[in-house]
Amino acid sequence: MPKPLEVLHKSLNNRVIVELKGNRGYRGVLNGYDVPHMNLVLKNADEIINGEVATKRETAIVRGDNIIYISP
Amino acid sequence: MPKPLEVLHKSLNNRVIVELKGNRGYRGVLNGYDVPHMNLVLKNADEIINGEVATKRETAIVRGDNIIYISP
Amino acid sequence: MPKPLEVLHKSLNNRVIVELKGNRGYRGVLNGYDVPHMNLVLKNADEIINGEVATKRETAIVRGDNIIYISP
Amino acid sequence: MPKPLEVLHKSLNNRVIVELKGNRGYRGVLNGYDVPHMNLVLKNADEIINGEVATKRETAIVRGDNIIYISP
Amino acid sequence: MPKPLEVLHKSLNNRVIVELKGNRGYRGVLNGYDVPHMNLVLKNADEIINGEVATKRETAIVRGDNIIYISP
Amino acid sequence: MPKPLEVLHKSLNNRVIVELKGNRGYRGVLNGYDVPHMNLVLKNADEIINGEVATKRETAIVRGDNIIYISP
Amino acid sequence: MPKPLEVLHKSLNNRVIVELKGNRGYRGVLNGYDVPHMNLVLKNADEIINGEVATKRETAIVRGDNIIYISP
Repeated sequence: MPKPLEVLHKSLNNRVIVELKGNRGYRGVLNGYDVPHMNLVLKNADEIINGEVATKRETAIVRGDNIIYISP
Repeated sequence: MPKPLEVLHKSLNNRVIVELKGNRGYRGVLNGYDVPHMNLVLKNADEIINGEVATKRETAIVRGDNIIYISP
Repeated sequence: MPKPLEVLHKSLNNRVIVELKGNRGYRGVLNGYDVPHMNLVLKNADEIINGEVATKRETAIVRGDNIIYISP
Repeated sequence: MPKPLEVLHKSLNNRVIVELKGNRGYRGVLNGYDVPHMNLVLKNADEIINGEVATKRETAIVRGDNIIYISP
Repeated sequence: MPKPLEVLHKSLNNRVIVELKGNRGYRGVLNGYDVPHMNLVLKNADEIINGEVATKRETAIVRGDNIIYISP
Repeated sequence: MPKPLEVLHKSLNNRVIVELKGNRGYRGVLNGYDVPHMNLVLKNADEIINGEVATKRETAIVRGDNIIYISP
Repeated sequence: MPKPLEVLHKSLNNRVIVELKGNRGYRGVLNGYDVPHMNLVLKNADEIINGEVATKRETAIVRGDNIIYISP
């Protein structure tokens, strides 16, 4: 059985979609994460608010407790 | 008495309905989970927002603390 | 003094009403639970949204942290 | 100094008012509780929603984390 | 440096104002508390909702996690 | 690197601005705090609601989990 | 793999964007932080509310649990 953190680990250096609470999200390259908080480091990240690209960030540290799901 | 995590374990590789907070949900194949967070790995997942299929994801890591219920 | 988990245990295999946050609830047979999270396994469960039966689920794993009360 | 749980303990078998988040409450006989969660067992409980008796429950297990206050 | 719990302790048997989340509050005599939850026992407590005295309670056990501030 | 609690400690006996969740805040003299909760004791505190001074409190014990930021 | 806290550490003494819950944010120089809470010390911080600079703070201690993301 693949564990969630193993699936996350395999997504390193690939683009992921990160859906956050409050109708926010990110699309970016997963550069790192920590355990057990599931905080993420994203690179070249588009911040999506209400379905539109709001801003672009070279790097973003996303706190895990805001995450709804991560899609590799 | 079947424990919740045993019932979840038996659902591996079967389609499940996952209801999340905020009128969101997923229908997909349960590919993995972890303990005790109940984070899930779903495959071929339809994301449901307000009752409609909003997007399809090949893989989604869903954080357990957003889950209301899982129906095998 | 009956402890809450003892009262829950005595309700096994009986129909219970489970009131969740967000105007949701379940009526179903309590098939299992875990400690200390109070996650539940319900069978033959009617999901109630805003007072009406919205869906029927053969099995549902309900996360304990969404529960307001359980009535045997 | 009377500790909150001592005051709760003295209320066993007496009617209490339990105010919950979300404009809900209960009036019923305190039949049991646990520590440290402060989950309650109420008997002959009137559920109050927005100030009106909505339902009557012979028994209700109320999760402590929804409680605002308990008044013996 | 006076610690918050020391200031609370000195307020025993004095009237305090307790502001809760959700535009609620209490004015009453601090009869007891526990550590670390900061659950309170209030006596002769006026419950204030939206700035008006809604009810009077001889005794109220207030859960600490609803408290915004306590003013001796 | 100055740690947040060191910066807080240096603010003792100085006026601070404390922004709370729910459009509330305080301006007062930081008289004490605890670790790790970051509960505060404020003296001569103006309570600010929606940008206006709502009340003045000689002493207020503010629970740390409501705090967004503290500005010395 | 760069861990989130390593990326944060490398941002010390640089300007960062801190997005908070509730449509708030900060732009300021990261002066310090703690582990594991991710509380921050910001210097010369502009507080942004609904996209506009609301106030300027020489120093702000921001509680980590309000943070959505930090962008160096």
